[in-house]
Amino acid sequence: MTGIVRIKDGGTHGCKVAESVRGPAIVLIEPQLGENIGTAARAMLNFELSDLRLVRPRAGWQNEKAIAAASGAKGVLSEARLFECTEEAIADLHRVYASTGRSRDMTQQILSPAHAAQVMRVGAVSGELSGVLFGPERSGLTNEDLALSDAVITVPANSYFKSLNLAMAVLLIGYEWFVHLDSIHDLDNLVMVGTRSATKSELQGFFDHLEGALDDCGFLRVQEKRPNMVRNIRNIFQRAQLTEQEVRTLRGVISGLVDHTSGTR
Amino acid sequence: MTGIVRIKDGGTHGCKVAESVRGPAIVLIEPQLGENIGTAARAMLNFELSDLRLVRPRAGWQNEKAIAAASGAKGVLSEARLFECTEEAIADLHRVYASTGRSRDMTQQILSPAHAAQVMRVGAVSGELSGVLFGPERSGLTNEDLALSDAVITVPANSYFKSLNLAMAVLLIGYEWFVHLDSIHDLDNLVMVGTRSATKSELQGFFDHLEGALDDCGFLRVQEKRPNMVRNIRNIFQRAQLTEQEVRTLRGVISGLVDHTSGTR
Repeated sequence: MTGIVRIKDGGTHGCKVAESVRGPAIVLIEPQLGENIGTAARAMLNFELSDLRLVRPRAGWQNEKAIAAASGAKGVLSEARLFECTEEAIADLHRVYASTGRSRDMTQQILSPAHAAQVMRVGAVSGELSGVLFGPERSGLTNEDLALSDAVITVPANSYFKSLNLAMAVLLIGYEWFVHLDSIHDLDNLVMVGTRSATKSELQGFFDHLEGALDDCGFLRVQEKRPNMVRNIRNIFQRAQLTEQEVRTLRGVISGLVDHTSGTR
Repeated sequence: MTGIVRIKDGGTHGCKVAESVRGPAIVLIEPQLGENIGTAARAMLNFELSDLRLVRPRAGWQNEKAIAAASGAKGVLSEARLFECTEEAIADLHRVYASTGRSRDMTQQILSPAHAAQVMRVGAVSGELSGVLFGPERSGLTNEDLALSDAVITVPANSYFKSLNLAMAVLLIGYEWFVHLDSIHDLDNLVMVGTRSATKSELQGFFDHLEGALDDCGFLRVQEKRPNMVRNIRNIFQRAQLTEQEVRTLRGVISGLVDHTSGTR
C-alpha cells in the first residue's frame, strides 16, 4: 500500500493515534519526458503523496534525468505502477478528477484545486480513494479520458498564459491536498455512514452491462454515432456520483428491462 | 514598469476601471541552473507576475535550456534585471520576504504562502511593492539575506522531505498571490491613509547612518563581533516594519544623539 500513515496527537485522549489517510493517486497519461515524471515525483513526496501511476509513458522514461529530477524521491519513482490504459489505471479508485486548463464542450463540474482537495479529504476520511488524471505535456487530456472523470480541476491562472508545466500542476494538487490536512478530523461530520462511492471498476462493469444491452437492442446500431452517444450516456452517470448500492440497483434495472423485453418479444 | 494592469468591472458604477496592481518581485539569488530560471519565469507568468530579478546568476544562465523551459514566457526572461548584491535588488521594495524551508535561530515572523500573499495584496492596494527572495538551489538563503527580510515564508510540507524545487517554490508564491486577487477590492478597508512603509533603500540609508555612528563612537570596535551585532540590530528594525516617516524620525534621533555627544565631549 502506498498510503502514508500519519501519527497524530489524539487530542483529549492525549495519546498518539496512527491513522491511515490515503492521498490521491497521481495518474500521468502518456508523459513524454522522464524529467517531468521525476519532478512530479518530487513534488508529490513534498506533500506526502506517493501513489504514482503511469499510463503508456514514453519508452525510456526511467532515465538518469528522471532520477536526477526526482531528487531524493526515487522511491516514488521506483514504485510507480505502469498501465496500458486509463480505465485499468483508475479501476480501484472511487473518485477521479481530470486536470485541464482547456474548457471543453462537455457538461462537467469544474473545481478549483482547493475545492477538489477538500472533496478528496472528505472522501479519504471514509476510506475512499481519489485520483487525478494529467494528460501528455503538449496535447493534454483527450475527451475520452475526460469522460472517465467525475469532475474537472482547473487551476485559476493568467487567462493569456494558463498552460502549466506538468509537474507544476501535480504540485498544486499535492499542495492543496496537504495544506489543510491537519483539519481532516473536522471532516468526519460530513461523511455519511453505511454508504460508499462505487469504484471505477464497478462503474465500468455497469457501463459494459448497459452498453451491451443497448448494442443488443439496436439502440447503438449507427456506428458513426456510437462513440458520442456512449460518452454522453456515461457522462450522465459520472456526474451522478453513484454509490456501490446504486450501481447494483441500476444493473438490476437493466437486467429487469432486458428480461422483460426478451420475454415479450 | 512590470506591473500588469487589470481591467475590472467598477461595481456599482457599471464602468470598467483600469487599476494597476503590482505583484511581488521574484528575486533569485545566485541561481545555478538556467533551466530553473526559465521554469520560474513560466510559473511567474502563469500567475501574472513579471518582475524577475537575478542576483549574481551563474554565468551562461541565459542559454537554450532556460529559454525552452520558459516556454512562451521569454518576455519575463529577457526583461529580468541583474544585480550585483541583494541590497541593490530590493532597494525600491517596501516589503521583502525570505522563502526558506529551514528554520533558523533568528527571531522572525514565519508566514505561510497564503498568509504572505494576503499581506502583499493589502500592501499592493496602497501602492507598496513586495518581493520574495529565493536562495541558490542547493544551499538556500544565507543568514545575511534573511536579515534583509521582513518575514520568512515557509511552505507547509512533508517534514521528512520538505525541500522544494526552486521554480516550484516560486510557483506557490505566484499561485497564492493570484488565487484571491479578485478579492483585492475587499482589502481597501485595511489600508491606512497618509502613511507608507519605508522602501528598502530608505531603510538601508538608516542602517548606514546608524552603523556609521556606532562605528564612530566605538560601539562596534570588536571586529569579530561586528557582523553579528549589526545583524541583530538590523533585525530589530526589520521586524518593526518602519514607515518612511519613522525612518526620518529615527535618523533625526541618531543625528541628535551624535551632535549632543560631540557637543559635550
